[in-house]
Amino acid sequence: MPKKIGNIIKMNNNTCIIASAGIAGHKESEGPIGKNFDITYEDDMLGEKTWEKAESRLQTEAVKIVLGKSALKESDIDVVLAGDLLDQCISSIFGLRSFSIPFLGQYGACSTMAQCLLTGAVLADSLAADRVLAVTSSHFCSAERQFRLPIEYGGQRNLTAQWTVTGAGAAIIGRDKGICRIEDVMVGRITDCGITDTANMGAAMAPAAADTILRYLNETNTSPKDYDLILTGDLGYVGSELLYEIMMKEGTDISGVHNDCGKIIYDRESQDVHAGGSGCGCCASVLCSYIMQRIRTGELNNILFAATGALMSVKSSKQGESIPGISHIVHLSSCV
Amino acid sequence: MPKKIGNIIKMNNNTCIIASAGIAGHKESEGPIGKNFDITYEDDMLGEKTWEKAESRLQTEAVKIVLGKSALKESDIDVVLAGDLLDQCISSIFGLRSFSIPFLGQYGACSTMAQCLLTGAVLADSLAADRVLAVTSSHFCSAERQFRLPIEYGGQRNLTAQWTVTGAGAAIIGRDKGICRIEDVMVGRITDCGITDTANMGAAMAPAAADTILRYLNETNTSPKDYDLILTGDLGYVGSELLYEIMMKEGTDISGVHNDCGKIIYDRESQDVHAGGSGCGCCASVLCSYIMQRIRTGELNNILFAATGALMSVKSSKQGESIPGISHIVHLSSCV
Repeated sequence: MPKKIGNIIKMNNNTCIIASAGIAGHKESEGPIGKNFDITYEDDMLGEKTWEKAESRLQTEAVKIVLGKSALKESDIDVVLAGDLLDQCISSIFGLRSFSIPFLGQYGACSTMAQCLLTGAVLADSLAADRVLAVTSSHFCSAERQFRLPIEYGGQRNLTAQWTVTGAGAAIIGRDKGICRIEDVMVGRITDCGITDTANMGAAMAPAAADTILRYLNETNTSPKDYDLILTGDLGYVGSELLYEIMMKEGTDISGVHNDCGKIIYDRESQDVHAGGSGCGCCASVLCSYIMQRIRTGELNNILFAATGALMSVKSSKQGESIPGISHIVHLSSCV
Repeated sequence: MPKKIGNIIKMNNNTCIIASAGIAGHKESEGPIGKNFDITYEDDMLGEKTWEKAESRLQTEAVKIVLGKSALKESDIDVVLAGDLLDQCISSIFGLRSFSIPFLGQYGACSTMAQCLLTGAVLADSLAADRVLAVTSSHFCSAERQFRLPIEYGGQRNLTAQWTVTGAGAAIIGRDKGICRIEDVMVGRITDCGITDTANMGAAMAPAAADTILRYLNETNTSPKDYDLILTGDLGYVGSELLYEIMMKEGTDISGVHNDCGKIIYDRESQDVHAGGSGCGCCASVLCSYIMQRIRTGELNNILFAATGALMSVKSSKQGESIPGISHIVHLSSCV
């Protein structure tokens, strides 16, 4: 049964990620971890007629692959927790419609994978569910046309802008021996520093990451050196630098153990992604492939996964609202 | 600690709704339960500059009222689970930004209040949280302009169309003595019968309600007469009739104990709402005011709350997709 210690929820039932799958598009296949994905697609339409349907297909395929890897059937899964960036979470809904698995839609913008993992961990650890599936996705083209400009317009991108990852990640949580244990989790708070620049999501999210990570280190009485990796979701280059700066002001230097999925997924020099990758599918695809593989090989043992989300819509920004951020922590330790 | 029995999650820690608040707009104040809301607003703008900001304000006010009624401070709440119909859940995000409460955004369309209550029940019952706040909202004008036509257009409404409720509901869940116990819950499945008419959400959601209620009655070995009330969220008049029809085909007649929040909230004859009320705020405001009051007076003891959601976006419908539905069950029993 989980136990609440301050703001930390500690698991006590050997709750693990027992299988995972990370899949991605063509651009991601050409990046530094392109070979680590379970599958990559040459054609980002995945044979579908629209980008939104292609993003849905990413979720369908990620779930099929993770079920295959775990040798579980859909009837073995008690709940699927899923979310995405599209209005009314349609890529999750239509991507998971063909599975007859009880469904709870989650919304935490690009922090959604952490939210799915933490909620799933509580469901499994408390015996409310035996196996929970967590899945999120994003797609460069569906995100661009929803949040920014028509792709066809070919607008010049700000240097602080990030590139939405075409990809999805899926993980199965259970109380079996797995790849890594979910030791504890912490739910983040909506953190608003008044950033309004929609072409600088890293800056909008960095204060939330700092708030969550600092409170977590403080409440657990640990320091950055206690972890092999503190992994944020998609702060990218600009947001990561800001995170170091905010945390240094509080006397905490994480730069030695920190990395960000938005920095890992693309090659900064050759792939012209400016500030790095972003999207619900960014940290999901990186965590569920490359990071889980490094845990399996024994390279990583103790990881803080702190995905971040920028909480906004086109409408809220047009109405002059700022962009609050949020960041949730999932603390993982190797079962190897 | 919760216990999974088939698809039912049973609570075992006296997990209760300990306080609730339901608030609404002007039209709702003129309906049959207008006097039952904690507060109603003459001006549906609530002093804000846009409808979206007004909807956010509904969530802020509902939370303030429920905290006041429970004599709890925001620091007494471990997690807030919230959601709404607006793109990227902005009314929850901006409505709850001023509270420093850890936040998990939920998306289940109009079933979101049931999703918040069921997830909150598991968090509280498992000791992962001591107190959880569940809150959802909707607003007629923000929904109309997002999903349908500009208000100013004054288009004629289909007879199967429903009227989005301007309102919000908030409930605090804890392991204290409260208004009613959350006995058990069941997570629904995405159910798609191929309905594509966006002016007939009742028809899109009725099959999901039937699927969930039938499976629940079957798994718990109970029948409709075992409950004082089976309360759906916003099937309205058309959807409720369809629900009876689908369930009768399976040999189950719920018409004697069923009601729907979309039927309760408006007067059909005098208020010109055609097929009834709808929106995340419909079942939330009705459950958290009128229904909780009837539990307090001893009039209702044993209730199945089965909120329903229509899973779609403007884009998915324009791309020819059907409208799947979902329905989650929260089983409540009076503490009076």
